Amino acid sequence: MSNLKEFVEFREKVNKIIIEKGTLNTKRFFNIDENVYNEGKLPKKTKELLGLVASIVLRCDDCVNYHLLQLKNLKTDYEEFFEAFDIALVVGGSITIPHIRRAVMFLEEIMTKEEN
Amino acid sequence: MSNLKEFVEFREKVNKIIIEKGTLNTKRFFNIDENVYNEGKLPKKTKELLGLVASIVLRCDDCVNYHLLQLKNLKTDYEEFFEAFDIALVVGGSITIPHIRRAVMFLEEIMTKEEN
Amino acid sequence: MSNLKEFVEFREKVNKIIIEKGTLNTKRFFNIDENVYNEGKLPKKTKELLGLVASIVLRCDDCVNYHLLQLKNLKTDYEEFFEAFDIALVVGGSITIPHIRRAVMFLEEIMTKEEN
Amino acid sequence: MSNLKEFVEFREKVNKIIIEKGTLNTKRFFNIDENVYNEGKLPKKTKELLGLVASIVLRCDDCVNYHLLQLKNLKTDYEEFFEAFDIALVVGGSITIPHIRRAVMFLEEIMTKEEN
Amino acid sequence: MSNLKEFVEFREKVNKIIIEKGTLNTKRFFNIDENVYNEGKLPKKTKELLGLVASIVLRCDDCVNYHLLQLKNLKTDYEEFFEAFDIALVVGGSITIPHIRRAVMFLEEIMTKEEN
Amino acid sequence: MSNLKEFVEFREKVNKIIIEKGTLNTKRFFNIDENVYNEGKLPKKTKELLGLVASIVLRCDDCVNYHLLQLKNLKTDYEEFFEAFDIALVVGGSITIPHIRRAVMFLEEIMTKEEN
Repeated sequence: MSNLKEFVEFREKVNKIIIEKGTLNTKRFFNIDENVYNEGKLPKKTKELLGLVASIVLRCDDCVNYHLLQLKNLKTDYEEFFEAFDIALVVGGSITIPHIRRAVMFLEEIMTKEEN
Repeated sequence: MSNLKEFVEFREKVNKIIIEKGTLNTKRFFNIDENVYNEGKLPKKTKELLGLVASIVLRCDDCVNYHLLQLKNLKTDYEEFFEAFDIALVVGGSITIPHIRRAVMFLEEIMTKEEN
Repeated sequence: MSNLKEFVEFREKVNKIIIEKGTLNTKRFFNIDENVYNEGKLPKKTKELLGLVASIVLRCDDCVNYHLLQLKNLKTDYEEFFEAFDIALVVGGSITIPHIRRAVMFLEEIMTKEEN
Repeated sequence: MSNLKEFVEFREKVNKIIIEKGTLNTKRFFNIDENVYNEGKLPKKTKELLGLVASIVLRCDDCVNYHLLQLKNLKTDYEEFFEAFDIALVVGGSITIPHIRRAVMFLEEIMTKEEN
Repeated sequence: MSNLKEFVEFREKVNKIIIEKGTLNTKRFFNIDENVYNEGKLPKKTKELLGLVASIVLRCDDCVNYHLLQLKNLKTDYEEFFEAFDIALVVGGSITIPHIRRAVMFLEEIMTKEEN
Repeated sequence: MSNLKEFVEFREKVNKIIIEKGTLNTKRFFNIDENVYNEGKLPKKTKELLGLVASIVLRCDDCVNYHLLQLKNLKTDYEEFFEAFDIALVVGGSITIPHIRRAVMFLEEIMTKEEN
């Protein structure tokens, strides 16, 4: 649980500082960064999966965790997660493995919990 | 039309040489690279979209073109393509723009044609 | 001259298609992408140099060319360009060399011309 | 303070081992790596900003911290830092956000301290 | 010793979960990932060095540690390690330095120990 | 033959301009970039293979071609090339495939020719 809690709290605390001290452009970027995952012609779940795979191949653990949380709340199951991991693994290669390992451990933590 | 034709022909010609001269491991990798996009718990179209966005953020034009062709044959429309491009753009940043430009020009060529 | 002309025309033509067919998020991203280089507490020239070096280390030739054009119009000279190239070269390594080679050839073309 | 202290001490300790056990080429690389940031036709502060933005888009936290320290000693203020962050954010995309978050937390620590 | 022990145990524990919950494609990828380093026309040691340098330039610490362990068991000495590091450093640039620092510290730990 | 000839001539022409207009740091970097591949404790051929695989996973076609030429002159055969490609492919993933395709076509051109 500590991984999850630490991740969520750090993220919120620093985002607040960034929004407070950042420029208008910073705020607008953060805004678009939320909007592109909204339900559209493509379903929200598909978009979150796109964010997840993009984050794995670019090897950004915090970004991966964020999308894992969103997807868990959208009722994604292990089979779907691993099919997405497979694409990231093949496209991005074995250097994504340490990130997939950490993603799997984060999943183990969040899949057994109530809605986040 | 020339972009599309040239792309498809070069790809086929060289893949044949690679399969012929490559090792057993090379062949097995190419095999998995096909299998991960097969219909599974996640639909094939979702998987191809995952391949597309991963390819844009990793900035691989040939990989992008390949997935654009697959997705066009799976009846993806412009609105869906641009929602996927948006996620790649936000996750990968402005350095993906030249690749999105080339993707858009490739789309312009293939969207008006019969099944490839 | 052909490199420069081709680059500028392709860029304009495709940007028009993207703005026309893209989503609201696409347009907003393109908008921020312009704004972050505006004169601020940091001078515009410094910001364009930041864009240049970021583009070299991420190895995006079209992005590099764009910033070279902006910087040439802001009266950047060869000595300044090479000091910026050096930082990109050391931070990004020898894999940036082919991109610096193309940047140098583009510079050779634009430095002898009137304002673009 | 611990982040800063730990970072500076680890860096010094290991650099000493590298210089001691490394080859002549290793030493020469480390030497150039210092020289490219020296005052030249471009001011040292501009060069450090170039190093900072290159480090963010390449997502190297230790490199980012190093340039933040240099820039703080060159009297860079929050507004300038955030204008530089904005360029890194737009060029490198949302995957730079976790690195910008850590940069902001490191800044919070060092901006309130005496010269480092 | 703790770095080494922690690294090896975490790796084994999570690989077991991945093999158990992963798809057939996941398993096949992990299989190829082992096979490509087997003795062939190129000696195993050369292949492990290739894996090491690829891992440094792609900046994957866990991958680096894995190859350092393999290479130590294949009787690689400091001089050979540093010649390989030099190539990674020049090709990948100064952003590989923090990874080389951590590699050097891991080496310091494992080089004095019995076979792992 | 045209690929090879064009590649070699462009490289030489632009390197000359860079050495002429570049700074002392530029020259020193180019110097180290040559030295790290010299015969040492590791044989020159192993070092060129390290440069090749690093260049494939970082997806730099010009860098790949350069090392292919060196390795051909050091009597590397197809089997060795493909074992090295396999490692790049597995470490770097399917996004390296277009670069391996171009490497294979370049090899087809140079392997049938006299010493370059």
